[in-house]
Amino acid sequence: MTRRKIIMDCDPGHDDAIAIILAAVQPKLEILGITTVSGNAEIEKTTQNALKICDLISLHDVVVSKGASEPMVRLRETAPGIHGDSGLDGPELPESSRTWSEEHGVDTIIRLVKESTEPVTLLPTGPLTNIALALTKAPEIKNNIEEIVLMGGGTFGNWTPTAEFNIWADPEAAKKVFDSGIPTVVMGLDITHQALATQEIIEEVNKIDNHVAKIVGELLVFFASTYKEMFDFDGGPVHDVLTVAYCVAPELFKMKDVNIVVETKGEYTAGTTLVDLHGVTGREVNAKFGLELDVDGFWKLMIDALKKY
Amino acid sequence: MTRRKIIMDCDPGHDDAIAIILAAVQPKLEILGITTVSGNAEIEKTTQNALKICDLISLHDVVVSKGASEPMVRLRETAPGIHGDSGLDGPELPESSRTWSEEHGVDTIIRLVKESTEPVTLLPTGPLTNIALALTKAPEIKNNIEEIVLMGGGTFGNWTPTAEFNIWADPEAAKKVFDSGIPTVVMGLDITHQALATQEIIEEVNKIDNHVAKIVGELLVFFASTYKEMFDFDGGPVHDVLTVAYCVAPELFKMKDVNIVVETKGEYTAGTTLVDLHGVTGREVNAKFGLELDVDGFWKLMIDALKKY
Amino acid sequence: MTRRKIIMDCDPGHDDAIAIILAAVQPKLEILGITTVSGNAEIEKTTQNALKICDLISLHDVVVSKGASEPMVRLRETAPGIHGDSGLDGPELPESSRTWSEEHGVDTIIRLVKESTEPVTLLPTGPLTNIALALTKAPEIKNNIEEIVLMGGGTFGNWTPTAEFNIWADPEAAKKVFDSGIPTVVMGLDITHQALATQEIIEEVNKIDNHVAKIVGELLVFFASTYKEMFDFDGGPVHDVLTVAYCVAPELFKMKDVNIVVETKGEYTAGTTLVDLHGVTGREVNAKFGLELDVDGFWKLMIDALKKY
Amino acid sequence: MTRRKIIMDCDPGHDDAIAIILAAVQPKLEILGITTVSGNAEIEKTTQNALKICDLISLHDVVVSKGASEPMVRLRETAPGIHGDSGLDGPELPESSRTWSEEHGVDTIIRLVKESTEPVTLLPTGPLTNIALALTKAPEIKNNIEEIVLMGGGTFGNWTPTAEFNIWADPEAAKKVFDSGIPTVVMGLDITHQALATQEIIEEVNKIDNHVAKIVGELLVFFASTYKEMFDFDGGPVHDVLTVAYCVAPELFKMKDVNIVVETKGEYTAGTTLVDLHGVTGREVNAKFGLELDVDGFWKLMIDALKKY
Repeated sequence: MTRRKIIMDCDPGHDDAIAIILAAVQPKLEILGITTVSGNAEIEKTTQNALKICDLISLHDVVVSKGASEPMVRLRETAPGIHGDSGLDGPELPESSRTWSEEHGVDTIIRLVKESTEPVTLLPTGPLTNIALALTKAPEIKNNIEEIVLMGGGTFGNWTPTAEFNIWADPEAAKKVFDSGIPTVVMGLDITHQALATQEIIEEVNKIDNHVAKIVGELLVFFASTYKEMFDFDGGPVHDVLTVAYCVAPELFKMKDVNIVVETKGEYTAGTTLVDLHGVTGREVNAKFGLELDVDGFWKLMIDALKKY
Repeated sequence: MTRRKIIMDCDPGHDDAIAIILAAVQPKLEILGITTVSGNAEIEKTTQNALKICDLISLHDVVVSKGASEPMVRLRETAPGIHGDSGLDGPELPESSRTWSEEHGVDTIIRLVKESTEPVTLLPTGPLTNIALALTKAPEIKNNIEEIVLMGGGTFGNWTPTAEFNIWADPEAAKKVFDSGIPTVVMGLDITHQALATQEIIEEVNKIDNHVAKIVGELLVFFASTYKEMFDFDGGPVHDVLTVAYCVAPELFKMKDVNIVVETKGEYTAGTTLVDLHGVTGREVNAKFGLELDVDGFWKLMIDALKKY
Repeated sequence: MTRRKIIMDCDPGHDDAIAIILAAVQPKLEILGITTVSGNAEIEKTTQNALKICDLISLHDVVVSKGASEPMVRLRETAPGIHGDSGLDGPELPESSRTWSEEHGVDTIIRLVKESTEPVTLLPTGPLTNIALALTKAPEIKNNIEEIVLMGGGTFGNWTPTAEFNIWADPEAAKKVFDSGIPTVVMGLDITHQALATQEIIEEVNKIDNHVAKIVGELLVFFASTYKEMFDFDGGPVHDVLTVAYCVAPELFKMKDVNIVVETKGEYTAGTTLVDLHGVTGREVNAKFGLELDVDGFWKLMIDALKKY
Repeated sequence: MTRRKIIMDCDPGHDDAIAIILAAVQPKLEILGITTVSGNAEIEKTTQNALKICDLISLHDVVVSKGASEPMVRLRETAPGIHGDSGLDGPELPESSRTWSEEHGVDTIIRLVKESTEPVTLLPTGPLTNIALALTKAPEIKNNIEEIVLMGGGTFGNWTPTAEFNIWADPEAAKKVFDSGIPTVVMGLDITHQALATQEIIEEVNKIDNHVAKIVGELLVFFASTYKEMFDFDGGPVHDVLTVAYCVAPELFKMKDVNIVVETKGEYTAGTTLVDLHGVTGREVNAKFGLELDVDGFWKLMIDALKKY
């Protein structure tokens, strides 16, 4: 069996971290590299967090490259209210002895895509800055990208009434990606809010007797607490994890072919994704949009993965 | 008992028509006047439709004034796909023998508000052009407006992925209203889509043995057919009727105090209402937003009203 | 000889005041009415100022109607730094014994245009709020408007780097006017800055031995002082007066047929007029734009007019 | 004497080509590298043109790197109407035997700035894509950039009524540069239109008896012809050359400290620079803006340089 080649472009971040943990044990996936971006926290923190997670799961031979420290055009804003000051508050994870690659994350994406003998799938789970910069610097990589499976956007927002954080943090980058012509799969808030790590889920994770599961449990507890406080949710939605799940078990997802454009100009609406569910705009389909998750199937996939550690 | 003074500013339109029919038999309400606006159809049609409905229910002594024939700034667009070419397709209604007032609708609103000894409630169920023009021409009327209970907006759209038709058709007018400081109650798509005139409802209406109910039944059948075709709904949502229902039976509505602003500038998002349900913007509360309808209670109110004819 | 019918829609304002003074003695012009708008100062002040000027020149039989007190959509802003707190600082003018019409300025414009047996020329010299409201309320008046000769805009700005005050103060109204299809003549900053009331001009005015000229001299002295302070100009540019001069002596003006659109959406550029002097946009001609003034001819016209008092 | 280190980021382009020719013989300047960008023509053409010019003047040891082939966010648009299909129409220049560096232009900028023992001056004479990408990828280079001396913008436009081509072609990149905090010198249309290569100038160039001057003469003839046709100018304005002239002879330039912001959001005004000449915005000074050129001194500098070949 050929394993699907993926590059994880992320800003860990609780759910990014769990996405890496899920991906690393999937026989169907080969992680070509991990690149980081400023988003949930500043770039040094998200990169350090990525390294810590790689250490935790002994993912020593996958390159980790530090990417963009700020958005393409706008000022940087992070989300400490959701992920804590470190970007990964909750568990105690030791400093990584390893350091990041000397290669910039954007160049790592370009190099890995160009070097790959098979088309590569990108899994961006933070702001789309790195992806957009790679596409601007080396547009020719489009030819060897199979798909972009991203977490971002939705028919409603969380950072503003209509905008989700990842898209809002760098709307121009998102516009670049959605206008690129590359097949794009969108895990927006509509579907990621179905993947709530409730108390029952946390208990099930805690029953698994290994260190990785223990850390995941602690991540979920912290994440649940900030989502309770800010949005009164009964558990933290593990947004980013859905991108990995989709790559290995697309049958868990009810998707819809839609057009999506990104607003970059509004007075109040920059970063809003316009998801044309009913075809009212007449614009061409350019994305698959996640509507409905097989919640039990999803968590079974996650629990099974954790048991492998 | 003092009856609440209302002015119905509308663009009939199937649901506007039913809103008038509901309002006219409410002992708690006194309709001071009906003003029309371009929206679902051109102004001559919406005004003629308002007159026809008044004839139908013998509402002969209420002034009907023709208002704005185009939006404040943008070009006019109507919605024949939803309401048919006449704006009120379905039943055969005779041409009205009456004609509209010589007074412009905007001036009727200003005059009635100024003349009223008690504060007046405005019920706009079309684009907000007339209300915004009245507020621009005579800002002092704010002091005698009790509340604006309007149909428009929502956390999602119908005319674009994020904008509802009434707000989209004249975003600048909507901005004027939401920025006015007048207490505003918003029946957006979130709640109006709960008021579906399903097959069962239509049958119940049809059981009522009077001419008005018969016409309402025909309106609902036509409306259901266009909503089926365009949005695959099981019945037409009688959006505008909720404004009247709220005035007489607010206990049927679960509302939330929120901030709402209207986007007028975006590339794709003009006419979008940003409903800050979770207080993420830090902007001050300026509206009551409809979350949940007591559906059975609402239809009981409607059926009871029809039985009075 | 038929006199050209004009309506002066203004916000006096030093240069508006002088425009009225110039117009009132032109045999070629018939002032049908004067309407006021919020702009250089609040509406009560600009209306009182218009009445004072009418008193000064015994223009007793021309209707003066108070128009819009705020812009169509945005918040009001005035220009006390240029025109002083009263809007007409400098000379001492007695309070008017007359009061304004009971009719709203917007309705006066509509009525006068409809009643006129010949097409009417509008001379707006303030924000275009009244004109836009009239066009929205009664679009049919377009058919009896010969031309709109307005002061506003230009290829550069004074209130922002790219926007002139009148257009900036109500960009949506300006957009409505420029999109209306009515023949429009634009006296923008490019040409109005050529009409500087320098020290020599002021001296020439002061030589004229009548009360009106004396007041005009005082207006020019005050206006020159604020322009010196804010823009380091050697004299105040009597912007608004050019609209009247154009109606009686178009031969003094080198004009160019151009397309003009008004920006309403930018982050920094709302109220900017895009004057397509070189035809780079491909958009259709919709205005005559003032390029060059016969300065001596213009001041001769002005001095001759003042001598008639 | 220490020579000022410069990087020329360009899209040759007739005036870019002449800028390189002027710079290469200045004892006060050291060209660290030449990077190219899509602008006047597509990237392959502008890069090939840069190489051809280097061949012409035997500038063999300066690195030439190909940069961005498209803007950061928007679609690419070029200017064949001004520069011909090749981007450098007019003279016959042999294909270069040399090829461009394997390093991307953005990385060349980053590397050269980091490696330099003294602060580097950037001279962008095309769209600002490369500079903005370098600043996004490696914000730390700001610390070793002495100044950005760019050609772009102005108080009026050439590509739209208010926007100059370089800024218009990538407004987001321009915004990034102007918001960067790096000292910026702006040669906008206000001053570059003073540097017209008139018939007299062309004749003077043609009197110089060397091959380089002959080619420059041919470039100026072609450039003059397109400017005559499109803008009715008496000669082509050699915009980009002013950036080099400023670095060696700032005394030829009357500059003003101003605030400049770039509009990215307008309906009509994207790419407009708002040059606050009169301090009306209250925003802080962030640029030196070129007001007036010593025209004779400028052309003497140019003629003297050509004589050195």
